[in-house]
Amino acid sequence: MLGLILIDHGSRRAESNAALENMAGRVARLRPDAVVAAAHMEIATPDLATAFADVVNRGANQVMILPYFLGDGRHLTQDIPQLAAAAALPHPNVTYTIGAALGPHDALAQLLLERGGL
Amino acid sequence: MLGLILIDHGSRRAESNAALENMAGRVARLRPDAVVAAAHMEIATPDLATAFADVVNRGANQVMILPYFLGDGRHLTQDIPQLAAAAALPHPNVTYTIGAALGPHDALAQLLLERGGL
Repeated sequence: MLGLILIDHGSRRAESNAALENMAGRVARLRPDAVVAAAHMEIATPDLATAFADVVNRGANQVMILPYFLGDGRHLTQDIPQLAAAAALPHPNVTYTIGAALGPHDALAQLLLERGGL
Repeated sequence: MLGLILIDHGSRRAESNAALENMAGRVARLRPDAVVAAAHMEIATPDLATAFADVVNRGANQVMILPYFLGDGRHLTQDIPQLAAAAALPHPNVTYTIGAALGPHDALAQLLLERGGL
């Protein structure tokens, strides 16, 4: 079974962390065949290791980590790969991949216009 | 004429600032009727006041500021409105509006899955 884990930085603002939960719900509705979780790099819980164990406990044997970031700075190129390797260590029979940053993409250009009211 | 200004935080990473220019190009292709610019809150140039004057010089009399941010933290609720008010001050005959944050949105959920390879 496919496990999908959305990950963002994590914030002291509850609304920010709730927004990632909101996004996880949207992804779950798009992929009812998968188990879905949200994780934060730091500050807020759950962390990636906890979310990884959670989707494995719910039956995932392949995990896709989906960074909720517009750009591919150091969090994407270094920090999330390190966190993912550590999170996967206790689950040697589970494979995982890490997605790319959201931007740039035409879907974001369309969404920018929509959010501007156009 | 409509002026569209994409704004992000601004980064020391040239790739990050180039990504916003890339997004501005995508928006310009979607709206060939508008004049489009990119601006950064800080660190990188142009700033919002410069981009605002630029689109006005190119014929804009209504400006839409489009925040390239996933969430609506303090940058969106406080900083960008303040920067926008200051940027608009020298252009009393130009109206402006500020768009909302990109997330949460189903288009982002679909894009997360696409960026994961699904």
